[in-house]
Amino acid sequence: MSSLPTFADVEAAARRLDGVVLRTPLLENARVNAMLGGRLLLKAECLQRTGSFKLRGAYNFLSLMGEAERARGVVGWSSGNHAQGLAEAARLLGLKATIVMPADAPALKVANTRASGAEIVFYDRLKDSREAIGQEIARRTGATVVPPYDHPWILTGQGTAGLEIAEQARALGVALDAVAAPCSGGGLATGVALGVKGLSPATTVHAGEPAGFDDLARSLVAGTRQTNEKLSGSICDALLAPTPGEVTFALAQKVLGPGLVVTDDEVLDAMEVAFREFKLVLEPGGAVALAAALTGRLPVKGRAVAVVCSGGNVDHATFQRALDRHPP
Amino acid sequence: MSSLPTFADVEAAARRLDGVVLRTPLLENARVNAMLGGRLLLKAECLQRTGSFKLRGAYNFLSLMGEAERARGVVGWSSGNHAQGLAEAARLLGLKATIVMPADAPALKVANTRASGAEIVFYDRLKDSREAIGQEIARRTGATVVPPYDHPWILTGQGTAGLEIAEQARALGVALDAVAAPCSGGGLATGVALGVKGLSPATTVHAGEPAGFDDLARSLVAGTRQTNEKLSGSICDALLAPTPGEVTFALAQKVLGPGLVVTDDEVLDAMEVAFREFKLVLEPGGAVALAAALTGRLPVKGRAVAVVCSGGNVDHATFQRALDRHPP
Repeated sequence: MSSLPTFADVEAAARRLDGVVLRTPLLENARVNAMLGGRLLLKAECLQRTGSFKLRGAYNFLSLMGEAERARGVVGWSSGNHAQGLAEAARLLGLKATIVMPADAPALKVANTRASGAEIVFYDRLKDSREAIGQEIARRTGATVVPPYDHPWILTGQGTAGLEIAEQARALGVALDAVAAPCSGGGLATGVALGVKGLSPATTVHAGEPAGFDDLARSLVAGTRQTNEKLSGSICDALLAPTPGEVTFALAQKVLGPGLVVTDDEVLDAMEVAFREFKLVLEPGGAVALAAALTGRLPVKGRAVAVVCSGGNVDHATFQRALDRHPP
Repeated sequence: MSSLPTFADVEAAARRLDGVVLRTPLLENARVNAMLGGRLLLKAECLQRTGSFKLRGAYNFLSLMGEAERARGVVGWSSGNHAQGLAEAARLLGLKATIVMPADAPALKVANTRASGAEIVFYDRLKDSREAIGQEIARRTGATVVPPYDHPWILTGQGTAGLEIAEQARALGVALDAVAAPCSGGGLATGVALGVKGLSPATTVHAGEPAGFDDLARSLVAGTRQTNEKLSGSICDALLAPTPGEVTFALAQKVLGPGLVVTDDEVLDAMEVAFREFKLVLEPGGAVALAAALTGRLPVKGRAVAVVCSGGNVDHATFQRALDRHPP
């Protein structure tokens, strides 16, 4: 394996993304802080263009491609947020994009990916290999595969969210004890760790995962890449990657603390708190790190903690399930 | 009447509020822009501390009070957002606050006002005069009345949101054709107009109101302050002030363009768009200016328009009504 990416790569990505991605706010709520007995800061990446952080990595990757490669376009696979981020990055840079999406991806994510001008190819999450389908398209068309997480250009792009957190916390005069980010394949969590630790080395960074899909948490314990038993079955549709990436896991072992695992009900409760206290719309996968903080799995009491709220692309029905858990 | 406030007063307020209020983001969505054929920028004041812009004016007012007055505390009346903003400003500055709220104010706004440590006195929206109750408390306790809108210190505090819009649009390289803000008594709309026009004199600024509560729109046409026939009956609980303020109307005649009036159903539709496309939780009153832009009452086609999304303090049931208008 080539050498692992560094903080300098995140800084370089931040320069590429300047003026392209939104510098999302770091939000705080006096009532929630009082309830938790500490300071909880939310990095609102649900407000990012395309409704999740994924534009960061995709745009960084496409910016680094050569001219000849760009002319042949890009192909990617995704349950939805990478699809939208990649499709929009391609639109912004004038590249053709083909996206391989699961047939059960949320309708909203499919519609939005299509709206960015991408061609969509569907697959069956339980029977097909999305990687194989994507690789076949790449072979046939010459398009470049843009992986959802397991590449230095992707994870350092996502890491710009971590760099922003560190800068924004510093501007608030806050020394962060810990940061947590949702985790599927590990691109966001490892990138954020690079970005945060470059400015704030003493801060611990954790990946949050849904129960039953905690492959990274178990891999960090085992010291080798573990695989989830199931391929579907959590409300967190964005966090179902079966195993950590090679690059992301190698990096995770160096930069991440122990994993945080939350249940679907805890995620729904966190979505309701985001609605009521922070006026943010979060999708289930985007609320996992917040859920870890609200449940005390990531302690906030007497500390300063930031959580990445990574996406808000949620269907009406799922959002109503969150609202229903806390009737007025 | 004393001389009207100016842009310099807004700039001074911005210095007082620096580090106290959140510089809320100006959000944009490629799909919505494509649909409207122009650029629509959302000033996300629902993300502001206390869930609305009201902290700006209240904190500015309390900062300008003398020492002796501060020691006797403050009293205010409000359907909810000024209540929360004033209570939180008082908490931040260590003042005692008493808030007069309608008995039918949303439960969330009452609970949040109480959580900031304020004492709450309820009144009947149809029978009692909240002004009379507040003035009586002031007489009895020596507390200073902090009006919800009709005071230069209040409206120039709210105007800092407009100054931020002008600065943020400039940073994006956008020349704004128009800005709109929700309007109850006119503090936000006139303040925003001062703030915007100080940096961008050619931009027209409009106040948005719910149908049936369009006292400012009619007053601007008539040239004298008009009063609404009803005191309740719109979903926009934050926008039911019966008539424009004296100061705000005098200023409105100088700085505002024609009023924009939208129906409750159009407001619910705008809340759904804010949820789906911008990942923002808006209360009905906070979505009025957005509704004006989405319905074309404030034309966006071929133009650049910013709308203030002024608050997000909405009960679950009302938010579900918005979601229900656009089933998945």
